[in-house]
Amino acid sequence: MARPDLRRNDEMRKVKITPNYTMYAEGSVLIEMGNTKVICTASVEDKVPPFLEGQGLGWVTAEYAMLPRATNTRKKRDIKSLKLDGRSSEIQRLIGRALRAVVDRAALGERQITIDCDVIQADGGTRCAAITGGFVALWLACKKLLQDGVIETMPLTNHVSAVSAGIFEDEAILDLCYAEDSHAIVDCNIVMTGTGEFIEIQGTGEGRPFTKEELNKLISLGKKGTGKLCRDQKRITGELGK
Amino acid sequence: MARPDLRRNDEMRKVKITPNYTMYAEGSVLIEMGNTKVICTASVEDKVPPFLEGQGLGWVTAEYAMLPRATNTRKKRDIKSLKLDGRSSEIQRLIGRALRAVVDRAALGERQITIDCDVIQADGGTRCAAITGGFVALWLACKKLLQDGVIETMPLTNHVSAVSAGIFEDEAILDLCYAEDSHAIVDCNIVMTGTGEFIEIQGTGEGRPFTKEELNKLISLGKKGTGKLCRDQKRITGELGK
Amino acid sequence: MARPDLRRNDEMRKVKITPNYTMYAEGSVLIEMGNTKVICTASVEDKVPPFLEGQGLGWVTAEYAMLPRATNTRKKRDIKSLKLDGRSSEIQRLIGRALRAVVDRAALGERQITIDCDVIQADGGTRCAAITGGFVALWLACKKLLQDGVIETMPLTNHVSAVSAGIFEDEAILDLCYAEDSHAIVDCNIVMTGTGEFIEIQGTGEGRPFTKEELNKLISLGKKGTGKLCRDQKRITGELGK
Amino acid sequence: MARPDLRRNDEMRKVKITPNYTMYAEGSVLIEMGNTKVICTASVEDKVPPFLEGQGLGWVTAEYAMLPRATNTRKKRDIKSLKLDGRSSEIQRLIGRALRAVVDRAALGERQITIDCDVIQADGGTRCAAITGGFVALWLACKKLLQDGVIETMPLTNHVSAVSAGIFEDEAILDLCYAEDSHAIVDCNIVMTGTGEFIEIQGTGEGRPFTKEELNKLISLGKKGTGKLCRDQKRITGELGK
Amino acid sequence: MARPDLRRNDEMRKVKITPNYTMYAEGSVLIEMGNTKVICTASVEDKVPPFLEGQGLGWVTAEYAMLPRATNTRKKRDIKSLKLDGRSSEIQRLIGRALRAVVDRAALGERQITIDCDVIQADGGTRCAAITGGFVALWLACKKLLQDGVIETMPLTNHVSAVSAGIFEDEAILDLCYAEDSHAIVDCNIVMTGTGEFIEIQGTGEGRPFTKEELNKLISLGKKGTGKLCRDQKRITGELGK
Amino acid sequence: MARPDLRRNDEMRKVKITPNYTMYAEGSVLIEMGNTKVICTASVEDKVPPFLEGQGLGWVTAEYAMLPRATNTRKKRDIKSLKLDGRSSEIQRLIGRALRAVVDRAALGERQITIDCDVIQADGGTRCAAITGGFVALWLACKKLLQDGVIETMPLTNHVSAVSAGIFEDEAILDLCYAEDSHAIVDCNIVMTGTGEFIEIQGTGEGRPFTKEELNKLISLGKKGTGKLCRDQKRITGELGK
Repeated sequence: MARPDLRRNDEMRKVKITPNYTMYAEGSVLIEMGNTKVICTASVEDKVPPFLEGQGLGWVTAEYAMLPRATNTRKKRDIKSLKLDGRSSEIQRLIGRALRAVVDRAALGERQITIDCDVIQADGGTRCAAITGGFVALWLACKKLLQDGVIETMPLTNHVSAVSAGIFEDEAILDLCYAEDSHAIVDCNIVMTGTGEFIEIQGTGEGRPFTKEELNKLISLGKKGTGKLCRDQKRITGELGK
Repeated sequence: MARPDLRRNDEMRKVKITPNYTMYAEGSVLIEMGNTKVICTASVEDKVPPFLEGQGLGWVTAEYAMLPRATNTRKKRDIKSLKLDGRSSEIQRLIGRALRAVVDRAALGERQITIDCDVIQADGGTRCAAITGGFVALWLACKKLLQDGVIETMPLTNHVSAVSAGIFEDEAILDLCYAEDSHAIVDCNIVMTGTGEFIEIQGTGEGRPFTKEELNKLISLGKKGTGKLCRDQKRITGELGK
Repeated sequence: MARPDLRRNDEMRKVKITPNYTMYAEGSVLIEMGNTKVICTASVEDKVPPFLEGQGLGWVTAEYAMLPRATNTRKKRDIKSLKLDGRSSEIQRLIGRALRAVVDRAALGERQITIDCDVIQADGGTRCAAITGGFVALWLACKKLLQDGVIETMPLTNHVSAVSAGIFEDEAILDLCYAEDSHAIVDCNIVMTGTGEFIEIQGTGEGRPFTKEELNKLISLGKKGTGKLCRDQKRITGELGK
Repeated sequence: MARPDLRRNDEMRKVKITPNYTMYAEGSVLIEMGNTKVICTASVEDKVPPFLEGQGLGWVTAEYAMLPRATNTRKKRDIKSLKLDGRSSEIQRLIGRALRAVVDRAALGERQITIDCDVIQADGGTRCAAITGGFVALWLACKKLLQDGVIETMPLTNHVSAVSAGIFEDEAILDLCYAEDSHAIVDCNIVMTGTGEFIEIQGTGEGRPFTKEELNKLISLGKKGTGKLCRDQKRITGELGK
Repeated sequence: MARPDLRRNDEMRKVKITPNYTMYAEGSVLIEMGNTKVICTASVEDKVPPFLEGQGLGWVTAEYAMLPRATNTRKKRDIKSLKLDGRSSEIQRLIGRALRAVVDRAALGERQITIDCDVIQADGGTRCAAITGGFVALWLACKKLLQDGVIETMPLTNHVSAVSAGIFEDEAILDLCYAEDSHAIVDCNIVMTGTGEFIEIQGTGEGRPFTKEELNKLISLGKKGTGKLCRDQKRITGELGK
Repeated sequence: MARPDLRRNDEMRKVKITPNYTMYAEGSVLIEMGNTKVICTASVEDKVPPFLEGQGLGWVTAEYAMLPRATNTRKKRDIKSLKLDGRSSEIQRLIGRALRAVVDRAALGERQITIDCDVIQADGGTRCAAITGGFVALWLACKKLLQDGVIETMPLTNHVSAVSAGIFEDEAILDLCYAEDSHAIVDCNIVMTGTGEFIEIQGTGEGRPFTKEELNKLISLGKKGTGKLCRDQKRITGELGK
C-alpha cells in the first residue's frame, strides 16, 4: 500500500509552526501539518468563570471552528443554524482538557486564557494540530505574562502535543491526511506530554472493532509522532524552565 | 483504600436492566447501575437523514439528556439557555458511534432508529449505562421489526457494552460512582463488543498524565466489566442469531 | 357507551403516588394515573427571581416537559428546534399558578422552589397529574425545610389537586385517558383545594360550544375527582398542620 | 367601591371596532376597549400546515404580541431574548382555539388564515379584545374569499367574542382595566358564541381560591358582556348568512 | 413619466405627525408619509449600557420592526426564525446613529432613551419616516425630562430628518413610494440636520452604477425634502432653545 | 497633522492580494491593506435561493465575520450569544449589494456564489478590503466556471473596489487605519466600478454633521483610492473580456 503522498507508514507530514502570526493576541501561531492550517491565538482575561471566582486559580479553555470553506464542500456557519456544530463542541472540549492538563492553575493566578483554534484549511488531523499549535500560543501568552511581571513562574509544567494514528487497509499509519482519515477503519488520537506520558487517548473503530494488538501499534506510532512534535515546539519554546 | 460502598477494586455495582419499561417505544429499558438510572428508548422511523437517502442503508443515532434534578444540584434545562450542553453533545455522539459499530446498516434497510437516553438519576457512569442499556433497547426494536416481517435478518452483529475504569488514589478501580469519578486522576471509558474487541476507548488524565502500564490496567478492568455487562444483556437478548 | 377500560363515567383511573422517588431532590414523587406517569421533583434554591429580591417573599415555579417517547409518536426535543413547545409553555404556567395559590410566600421566605414535571409516559391528563404530584413534591421539600429548621411554619395553606373531565359522545366523564381526550368534544381541567374551592378552571369546547348545564356537570365530576385525589395526597402528607 | 372610571360593576368600557384599518391584509381591524388598542389582521395563504395537507380542510391560527411600549414599563422584544414570551404563547393558543371553534374547516378549504393580534396599547383585557377583534378581521377575510369566488359558503358558523370578569374587593365586576386586573383576586376570561354558548372559560384564583357561587356570578357577567360585544360585531358583519 | 400619485418629481407625500400617540411612553408619535405609517415611542431608562457606566454620558438607541402584515405579503415574525431580520438590523443601526448625532450626551446624563419604531403599514421610506418621527418622540421625552427637572438643558442640539430620493427611469425623484422604490435604479437615503448639514448619506446603485451628477441631483432633492420635514417637526417642537 | 504611519493624506496603505490562497474554494484570495488581513473565498453551488428558482438567474451573496482575536480585545463568537453581530449583518449586506452590481445574473445562470470574508486581523477598512478582495475571489470562481465550460461568457461586467475616506482633525484623509477610524469625525465608504462610477456611497457624521464640500473632498479621495485598487485587481484579473 502506498500513501497518497508516498510517506512511510510511520512518517509525519511536514510541520511548520509560525509564532506571533497575528498582532493583537497575547500569543498566536499558524500551525501547518501538510495542507492542514490552523490559526491558534491565546487571549488573556483578568477574570475567571463564576464557578472559580475567589479561589486564586486560573482557567484555560478552548474554542474550535472551521472557516466555511476550509473543507471541500462549503460548511454553513454555526450562527446560520444557531447551533454549535456537535463535532466542534466535542473537539474544543478535548483541546481544553489537553491544555489544562499541563497548567499549574495556581501559578497562573485568577485569570483565564482562551485558546481560539480556527481552521483555515482542513486536510485531516485538525484537532491534533489545534492542540499542538494551541500549546505554543498558550506558552507565548504565558511568557508575556512572565515578562510583564504579571505572574512569577511559568505556569506550564510540560509540553503537550497530539497526533492521529489509524488502521488503513490493515496497516497502522501515522498522521492521517483527509483521504486516509475518511477511509480508516480505526482512528486514534493520542495526546502526550513532552516526557512521554498520556494526557488523552481516544480510539474509535470506525469500520470494525479493533484488538489490543492494534491499539498497541497505534499507541507506538502516536508516541513517535508526539515526540517529534514536541521537538518542533521546543525550537520555539525551548525547555520549560520555571 | 476502601471504596464508598466497600466494593473490591474490580467489582461492579449491581446492574439491573428492565426491558419494555415504557409502552409506546419500539424498544425500551430502564437500566440501573447502582444509583445511576437511565431510561433508554428506541424509536423507529421509516426515513433516513438526507445524506443517506436512496442508498438502501439504515442509520442509528442517539440523544442523551439529564432530567434537571438527576444530579445533586439542579441543572438548568438546555432549552432555557437555548444551547445543547457541550457534555451532552459529546456523550450522545459517543453513544451513536458505539451502537452503529455493531449495526449491519444494509440489513436494517432505509430506516432510522433513534436511541433516547434520559438520565433519571446520575451517580457516575451515565454514558456507559446509556450505551449498555441503549443496546438492549435497540435489540428490542430490531426484534420487533423482525417479528413484524419488516426486516429479514437481525441487523445487530454483536453485543456492545461500556464501563468506566479509573485511577483513584493510585489504585485502578472499575465502574466508578460519582464520588469516585469526581476525584479520579485518570478516567477511562471502554466500549467493547460481546466478543472482547474494542469499539471505543477514551482515556483522560484528569489530575495528571498517565503511563502505558496504567492504561493497560484500566483496559483489563474494562474488559472484565464489559464481559459481565454482556452476560447481563444476554439474559434478555440471548445470543444474536441471524 | 363503554369506556375503553370499562370504568364508570365518574370513576377515576388507579392513582399511585410514590414519594422520595429520586435521591437528590428536596422533594420528589412518581405519580401514576393509569398509564400516565410523571416524575415531579421539588428543588430549593436560596434566591428568588430579580423582581422579588429584598421583599422577604418566596416563589414557586414549575417546568413541564415530556420525554421524546412519552407518546405514541416520537416528539423532537425542544432544544432541537430551539423553541419551548407552546403546549408545554401553557401547561407549566398553569402548574405554577396552581401551586402558588396555596403557598404562604412570606412563610416560605426569600427562596425559590422549582417543581420539575417530566412526563415518562403520557396517556391523557398529564397536566393534572403534574399538579397533583407536584403538590406532594412541594410538600416534601417544605417538610424538609421545616425539619432542617430553615423555616418555622409550613408554608402550604391547603392541598391542591387537579383532574380532567369532558364530554365524550354527549356523556360527561371523569379523568379522560388519551383515547377519550383526543375525541372529547368538550374538555375541562379543574384545579381545586383540599377544602373544595376552585383554584383554576379551564373549559374548552374542542368539537362544539357547550352549555352552562354541561359545564356544571363537568364541575361536579371535577369536585368528586379532586376530592379523591386529596385523600390520596393525605395518605402521604397527612393534614397540613401549621 | 367605585371603579376607577366610575363604571357600574356590570358595565363595559367603550368599544370601538374600525374595520379595514390597514391596506394590505385580507381582513383588518383596530379594536379599542377603553384604552386597550389592538390591531388584528387576517392573512390568507393557499397552503396548510404539513399535518393537514391533502385533507381538504383549512386552518386558522393566531399570533399575539405587544409593542415594546404598549405597557407602562418597556418590555424587551422577544427577539432580544430569542424566546417567545410565555404569556404571549399561552394567549395566542387561546385566540387560535377560540376562532377555530366557529370555523367550518371544510368550507374554508385547504388554506390557512393567520390572525395577527398586535397590541398597540395595553390597559387590561388584551386577549379578549384580540379574540373579539380577530373574529371581525377573520370575517372580513372570509367575505373577501367569498366575493372573489374562492370559496362558496361563508365558513364562519357563529360569532365569537370574549370578555373578562373578576372579583375585586369581593365584588364581581365586568371588563377589568389594568388597575383592576392587577389587583383582582379572581380573574376569569369568558369566550362565548353569538348564540350564548361557551367556547372557552378560564377562571383563576389569583389572590385566593373561589367558590361555585362566585364562578356563577362571573359567568353571568361574561354572558352579558359577550352579548354586547356580538351586537357590536354585527354592526360590521351583520348576521352570518351562509 | 407620471408618478403613481401624480406628484411632481420634487414633491413629497403628505406628512402627518401625531404627537403623544400612545399613553405610556415618555415620548410617542404616529408618523404618516403617504401610506407609510410608523409608531415611534421614546422610553427613558435610568441606566446605560455596561460600556458607558460611570462616565456621566447618556445613550440613545433604536429598534425597528414591521408588523407581520405591514407589507403586501405577510412577513414571518423574527421570533419564529429566531433571527433578527438583516434589513431591520441595518435600519435600526442607521436610526440610532442618526439620532445620536444631535444628542449632547453629557446634557442627557447617565440614562438611556430607546426609540422603538414599529411599522404599521409600509409603502416605501419607512426608515426615513422612522428617523423623522423618532426625532419628535425623542424630543417629547427630553422635554418631559426637562419639565420634571431631571435634566437642566435640552440635550438635543439640532433637528434631524430623513428622506429618500432615487433615479427612476432616468429621472431623479423625491420621497419614493414602494412601487417606485422597488423599481428604482438608484436609491439614496439622506439624513440631514435642521441647519442643512449631512448626518448620513447612503446611495446605492440598485440597477446600475451612478455618476457624480446623479448623486448631486439626489442630494439636492434630499436637502429640499429634509428642509420641509424639519419645518413639519418644528410645528410640534418649535425651535430648540436650550 | 502627521498620520501614524506618516502617509500623505491621499496615500493608501500597501495593498497585497494573494490569489488562490486556499486549496478547496473555487476562488480565494488573501487581501492585505496594511495590517488589515481578510481571507475571501468564493464557493459555487448549483442552486439558487427559493425566491429565484426557475428564473434562469444566478445570485451572489456574502458573509462577513471576524476571528475572535482579529481585534485588540477578544470578541465573543456569534454562536455564543446566538446572534449575528449587528455590524457584521450590515457589512455583509453591503458586500453582497456591491458585488451583485457588476454581475450579469443571466450569464451566471441558475447558480449561487457565496463570498465568505473572514477577517484574520482588523486595522480599519475591513469592509472595503472584503469588497476589493471578494471581487477577485468572485472573478477567480467565474473564470473557473468559464474554463470548465459551465458558463459561456464572463458574468462580471466591471471591476468593483472600495475604500474608506474620512475627516480627521478637519483634514480629509484616505484609507483610514483603526487609530484614525476610531477618532474620525466623518467616515465615508466609497464603492466604485473600474470605470469610475459609484456603486454605493455611505457617509456618516460620527462626531459632527458634515457639509457638501467635505463630502466632495471625501468622494475625490475615494475615486483616487478605488482607481488604484482596480489597477491592483487587474494585475490578477486583466481586463474583463467577454
